[in-house]
Amino acid sequence: MTTNRQFKLAARPVGMPKRTDWTVVDEPVAEPKEGEVVVKVLYLSLDPAMRGWMNEGKSYIRPVEIGEVMRADSVGIVTASKSARFKTGDHVVGTLNVQQHAVVPEKAITRVDPRLAPLPVYLSTLGMPGMTAYFGLLETGKLKDGETVVVSGAAGAVGQVVGQIAKIKGCTVVGIAGGADKCKYVKEELGFDACIDYKAEDVKKALRTHCPKGIDVYFDNVGGDILEAALANLARHARIVVCGAISQYNNAGPMKGPANYLSLLVNRARMEGMVVFDFADRYAEAAKEMGGWMAQGKLKSREDIVEGLDDFPEKLLMLFRGENFGKLVLKVADA
Amino acid sequence: MTTNRQFKLAARPVGMPKRTDWTVVDEPVAEPKEGEVVVKVLYLSLDPAMRGWMNEGKSYIRPVEIGEVMRADSVGIVTASKSARFKTGDHVVGTLNVQQHAVVPEKAITRVDPRLAPLPVYLSTLGMPGMTAYFGLLETGKLKDGETVVVSGAAGAVGQVVGQIAKIKGCTVVGIAGGADKCKYVKEELGFDACIDYKAEDVKKALRTHCPKGIDVYFDNVGGDILEAALANLARHARIVVCGAISQYNNAGPMKGPANYLSLLVNRARMEGMVVFDFADRYAEAAKEMGGWMAQGKLKSREDIVEGLDDFPEKLLMLFRGENFGKLVLKVADA
Repeated sequence: MTTNRQFKLAARPVGMPKRTDWTVVDEPVAEPKEGEVVVKVLYLSLDPAMRGWMNEGKSYIRPVEIGEVMRADSVGIVTASKSARFKTGDHVVGTLNVQQHAVVPEKAITRVDPRLAPLPVYLSTLGMPGMTAYFGLLETGKLKDGETVVVSGAAGAVGQVVGQIAKIKGCTVVGIAGGADKCKYVKEELGFDACIDYKAEDVKKALRTHCPKGIDVYFDNVGGDILEAALANLARHARIVVCGAISQYNNAGPMKGPANYLSLLVNRARMEGMVVFDFADRYAEAAKEMGGWMAQGKLKSREDIVEGLDDFPEKLLMLFRGENFGKLVLKVADA
Repeated sequence: MTTNRQFKLAARPVGMPKRTDWTVVDEPVAEPKEGEVVVKVLYLSLDPAMRGWMNEGKSYIRPVEIGEVMRADSVGIVTASKSARFKTGDHVVGTLNVQQHAVVPEKAITRVDPRLAPLPVYLSTLGMPGMTAYFGLLETGKLKDGETVVVSGAAGAVGQVVGQIAKIKGCTVVGIAGGADKCKYVKEELGFDACIDYKAEDVKKALRTHCPKGIDVYFDNVGGDILEAALANLARHARIVVCGAISQYNNAGPMKGPANYLSLLVNRARMEGMVVFDFADRYAEAAKEMGGWMAQGKLKSREDIVEGLDDFPEKLLMLFRGENFGKLVLKVADA
């Protein structure tokens, strides 16, 4: 009988999560019922949003309950199937959670093709981060060709895709990232016009230099001081896409709101929140277009693959320390 | 020779403006040149926005310079004309500034009809505050019939119009105002469904009670804690119209940004700034529709008329203390 190691939520963290906020439990893998499949998890997505799922209270998705297996998106391989739609050996993606094996209904998973892209890419540019970038920029951000686009977390899962799509659309693109290596990558490999190292530069001043006509679209993954720096440099009718606020998720006290939000008034600008799930019926359309760009070499996808389910709590914290470079993915098992 | 008393900006205030931030100067009224008219100011509009005009730095309009006559909208009567478009005795509205007599080019003023509405109404519901309410609610706010609308400063110049238009559109309307008298007026005279007294009630809780399905449009005139209370009660796809932030204009330190702005993300909501000038080519259209509503008794306009140009600095402060009840207008002279 196969054992299934799981991370169950044990406590709601205050500030940074720590190992004791989860309990590690080994249980036998359940037998699939009719219409269910068993999936062996190969790669597990580590996302900033996971921090929010650990909190109580109303959000865009229900919180993970105490005692429940921690939520995560994963790619895996089908090891047993009582579904007509999936067979053993199929590769699938879905919300399979922080564990080695998931028993799920067939509707909870989608087949992916490892010949078209390496499996981790389905948690990255061809997965939720890519969809978030695509719909956030084009739909919520209402990007127009040739505009000036700024994206924070530019070397991260969402940011790398936002900037590259904006370049494909003929925009001037400025990234914001932490450290010279990331900035070099963003400019030289991904082709952004500029990248501001927020650890070394005055972001507000640097934005003024790189965006002399102001920012048309600011795609915000970080919140805090960088959001204020962007607000201070908006063009008229700018759109701010509120995708995340990673700088604020682990505050033990209240979050910091943007003190200069009246820049929205001065510039007749808009700040709008987006949740990728709202675009679920268009994922296939976006995946097709982005897959095409990848095949043409116009869209690169970088994943930062770390290993070991047992180190899940520590690996997750890499995100909040800005230690990942590209989409952070935890490798759980070999295929 | 007629003397013209003027309030010229003498200093940029820190915190609340005070009398010494202006210099009172008496000068002879200049002769009009070709195409100019002389207007005797009768009523002068006191607006929260005036505080912003006293600050240095980029805004939606250039600051008043030190030594320049303080900017204000006014209604007056033409006393001399070298324009073919205006004759002595015409009543006009325009940015005539804080003074007794203005010499202005003909394009700076618009004729108004005192038989259709009392003159102060042209600084109120049929003036900039009414236009701000109309376009802010219907265009920026994208109001749909039957939605739940909340407006702060509900007994003020803009708020009273916002709520009444929303009622005309079949919406559920909740006002927020300071004091039992204002709330009574807002409910009983203006017909709002409810009014929350922010001086006596927990606004966040009261909004939850009065807006059980959440707020679809929040029209914000005040910012600060009340903006946060509204953010905490948004419906999905809500729109926040950022019109002003009177609670924050006199902060000596930085403004307070909304700490819970991620409610925009959770609710896929939008916060958008508006400046009424952008709709200048549609003022006539709005005035016609609102004039019609006034004639039918569906739209009431309340002005709070105080007297005496010499007391301009003290009367202006009434706005920031919430002492005005309806549109605050300073009577400068009899017709």
